[in-house]
Amino acid sequence: MRYSSESIESLVEQFSRLPTIGRKSAQRLVAHVLKMTKEDVERFAKALLAVKERVKRCSICQNVTDDVPCALCRSDKRDQGLVCVVAESNDILALERTGEYVGVYHVLGGVISPLDGIGPDDLRIRELIQRLGPDAKHVIREVILAVNPTVEGDTTAFYLAQLLTPFGVQVTRLARGLPVGSDLSFSDEATLTRALAGRGPL
Amino acid sequence: MRYSSESIESLVEQFSRLPTIGRKSAQRLVAHVLKMTKEDVERFAKALLAVKERVKRCSICQNVTDDVPCALCRSDKRDQGLVCVVAESNDILALERTGEYVGVYHVLGGVISPLDGIGPDDLRIRELIQRLGPDAKHVIREVILAVNPTVEGDTTAFYLAQLLTPFGVQVTRLARGLPVGSDLSFSDEATLTRALAGRGPL
Repeated sequence: MRYSSESIESLVEQFSRLPTIGRKSAQRLVAHVLKMTKEDVERFAKALLAVKERVKRCSICQNVTDDVPCALCRSDKRDQGLVCVVAESNDILALERTGEYVGVYHVLGGVISPLDGIGPDDLRIRELIQRLGPDAKHVIREVILAVNPTVEGDTTAFYLAQLLTPFGVQVTRLARGLPVGSDLSFSDEATLTRALAGRGPL
Repeated sequence: MRYSSESIESLVEQFSRLPTIGRKSAQRLVAHVLKMTKEDVERFAKALLAVKERVKRCSICQNVTDDVPCALCRSDKRDQGLVCVVAESNDILALERTGEYVGVYHVLGGVISPLDGIGPDDLRIRELIQRLGPDAKHVIREVILAVNPTVEGDTTAFYLAQLLTPFGVQVTRLARGLPVGSDLSFSDEATLTRALAGRGPL
């Protein structure tokens, strides 16, 4: 026997299906939901449904958005000739937090990962190529590959670099090196090797 | 600027209002919701609303339940003369998992905690007293105080013991000592003192 309420049992199951949430955490979350006001729970449920109903993919950058094309792709305050390629939508948030990037984005929807059965055709690479083609609205000067510095990220970056160079576009990649505020003596060899190779003037 | 979708922003906010879920975790959860099928999201939203609409408190044990009185309080397979007093509904799950307890429960809805402004009147103690009164359906022989072995739990246990003893009911408390599988050399002094004081024959 578990909970003496089927509705609680069912919500625990729903919560524990989410990533990083186990049964114990789900129970704690449901205990919180039980203490929430009816209006708050209704707002939560409505937000869940709205995301599924309203969120679309931007026809240009493939990012999630309520309006197509998205605010960034429509903006004349952004440099439409500079495209930053990221794996997931959440990576855009991190880049926007810097407040330094003025260009636009392209969301691949993942990285090439043969072990997980994800090849180039499973990513939104075709849509990226289209943005470089003759029918594109903006002329793209530079493509920044902002994929994670992992094996899968490196594979994806090399694949894209080979694919994009024939279009006469400049292809760059985020610098790899020591993270700001880190301790050199605790750095791993791969990072330190990169930092040495990429050293520059002060 | 944050997400390029207001619906996503709103769901991130809803998730991050839940306990133990920060903004980063909320973003990860929303990314998962975006990948869920529409049917699954609808099932989730429905489960949320159902909990608020259907879950009531059992008129006897005060536990959360869909039917009043709850299955445990109605059951003739449970010893209705043995009542285990717990702070929260989730504690019942832990006790039921042992498969050893045959009695019924009483949920206080918290413990006495002057620092948090929670006094005896904020707990469902009145309802517990009623179960011992002359109008009660079942004669209660024993009340087991299954509150956490913390300062607040101890305070609550002492308060209840004083309150319940005049009713001629036996009041007991869960044993405190070494947890099964633990290492004596890593035990704290308080636990070890308790384990010494509560030592018994093999």
